[in-house]
Amino acid sequence: MVRGTLNIKSYEGKIILSHRRIKPHIHNTPLISSSAINKIAGCKIYFKCENFQKVGAFKMRGAINAILSYPNEEGEKGFVTHSSGNHAQAVALSSKIIDRKAYIVMPKGAPEIKIDAVRGYGAKVFLCENNEKSREETCNNIMKETGANFIHPFDNENVICGQATCAKEVYGEVDDLDFMMCPVGGGGLASGTILSTKIFSPDTKVVLGEPLNASDAYESFMKKMIVPVKEPNTIADGLKTSLSERTFRIILEGADKIILVSEDEIVDAMRLIWERLKVVCEPSCSVPLAALLKNKEKYKDKKVGIILTGGNVDVRKLPF
Amino acid sequence: MVRGTLNIKSYEGKIILSHRRIKPHIHNTPLISSSAINKIAGCKIYFKCENFQKVGAFKMRGAINAILSYPNEEGEKGFVTHSSGNHAQAVALSSKIIDRKAYIVMPKGAPEIKIDAVRGYGAKVFLCENNEKSREETCNNIMKETGANFIHPFDNENVICGQATCAKEVYGEVDDLDFMMCPVGGGGLASGTILSTKIFSPDTKVVLGEPLNASDAYESFMKKMIVPVKEPNTIADGLKTSLSERTFRIILEGADKIILVSEDEIVDAMRLIWERLKVVCEPSCSVPLAALLKNKEKYKDKKVGIILTGGNVDVRKLPF
Repeated sequence: MVRGTLNIKSYEGKIILSHRRIKPHIHNTPLISSSAINKIAGCKIYFKCENFQKVGAFKMRGAINAILSYPNEEGEKGFVTHSSGNHAQAVALSSKIIDRKAYIVMPKGAPEIKIDAVRGYGAKVFLCENNEKSREETCNNIMKETGANFIHPFDNENVICGQATCAKEVYGEVDDLDFMMCPVGGGGLASGTILSTKIFSPDTKVVLGEPLNASDAYESFMKKMIVPVKEPNTIADGLKTSLSERTFRIILEGADKIILVSEDEIVDAMRLIWERLKVVCEPSCSVPLAALLKNKEKYKDKKVGIILTGGNVDVRKLPF
Repeated sequence: MVRGTLNIKSYEGKIILSHRRIKPHIHNTPLISSSAINKIAGCKIYFKCENFQKVGAFKMRGAINAILSYPNEEGEKGFVTHSSGNHAQAVALSSKIIDRKAYIVMPKGAPEIKIDAVRGYGAKVFLCENNEKSREETCNNIMKETGANFIHPFDNENVICGQATCAKEVYGEVDDLDFMMCPVGGGGLASGTILSTKIFSPDTKVVLGEPLNASDAYESFMKKMIVPVKEPNTIADGLKTSLSERTFRIILEGADKIILVSEDEIVDAMRLIWERLKVVCEPSCSVPLAALLKNKEKYKDKKVGIILTGGNVDVRKLPF
């Protein structure tokens, strides 16, 4: 795959429309800063707090956008997805908002607290074995039986355009950001952030953070071909997924850099966010700050946006 | 003391001027809501996030307002206070901002982390014995030697007018709040909140939360005379102080009610704020939510503002 072949401009209308569509259903989350963190980092950081988003994560943007995009006659059959994380809750709540059924496939052994949260939004939960085959079969069976529409966590243009609204909101509030940073897992948020940046703030560079122990996006970016993740083993459980063709193409086209961080660096950055920014964030959420802090000289005196992706974490089981 | 004798209207100009004076030095902190907490509480709550304020607490408002109010010739001798908490950091940072000396008296045995934070703002720390006599003597000696001006944590009109700007910001953003809630310790924030409410949103009722184990404001309010706190023993360490004549008078005049909460109720509300609002808060900070939750029927379907007072807590030592 080569850079320069993607028509990014073609996304402008889609992202603007997506934002208009989802605005009544999402929070325009605040941007906050901490003088203490700025001092430590040597630059000015604006944190976009998606941990205050509905369901506690940016995933709400993509899910509600995808679901609202379905024509009535298809949409009324409901929606299905597989996820043990924030996307599950986002699809469940989005379906509830428009009074549609949601079927969520989760692996046996997923934390009770997450299963309960999804059921709390009125979704029906189907437990499958913890492997891709069982997951797909369970989804396919549900789709056959109910006619429900599958909402992929990231390999879906409307999901990506929904996630793109997050960076778009940042650019509506702060001018002249030198860098915008977010983590990369499957690449939905990363792709959306790249698209919004190229369209609404073309001088800003997008830098992605990724755990060293789940470095498929980095490998893929460097080799210019998809290298799927092998046995990811990271505390940043939202970032274990591999890129899809669709997200890889956008990331290859528009990311300036992908920075790898160790598990210790992730936990240190997470604690810094809790202690200094006073915000509850997931481990995945602290990956971009960890990436910045290990490359301080590159960001010295710059204006940097960082998307804090989510805050769904068990506050009784902390890694510090 | 009787109600109806305080000229609240006379504070209007002072609060407006205070707000103008301190605006360049403080954050206009965001208001955030959580559907999950609203569902649990049965009402619509707007949390004013002073844990995102400079130094991590509302205390910055009062301290910088008091310090900026000093004429140059007096102010240049610097400022002194006694505090082991957020007020110490607020006086230290405020003094630094206008390039004045700060002398902070703290009890021996105060956590190293708090002493370091104050020194980090360039203040000089004086350790005293952990009793009122030693504290006062140490402050008096510093004042004699340096000519520094004493900034009381709450018994100071400019401090109170500074704290008042917090509720004023809320009323600038949300109309028609039925209730505004905050915790009460020495009564600086409570007084400021009452003044701003009576002036800028007179139909809103102010409800104060206080720990059962430090219930002097409640006792004083009920008996209409100051009843100093005896051996306060609460996790809400910011609320152990007794009212002063000045704050008592305003609270007696303008508080609708003071609600007492147990230690367990404080910890439960604190965990709810961490888990659902995704915000790091101190135990003192969660007292008003605890007060609301034990009286849900009174607030059913109402619009309620709650001031989250601060987030300076050791995230490695949590009570849950």
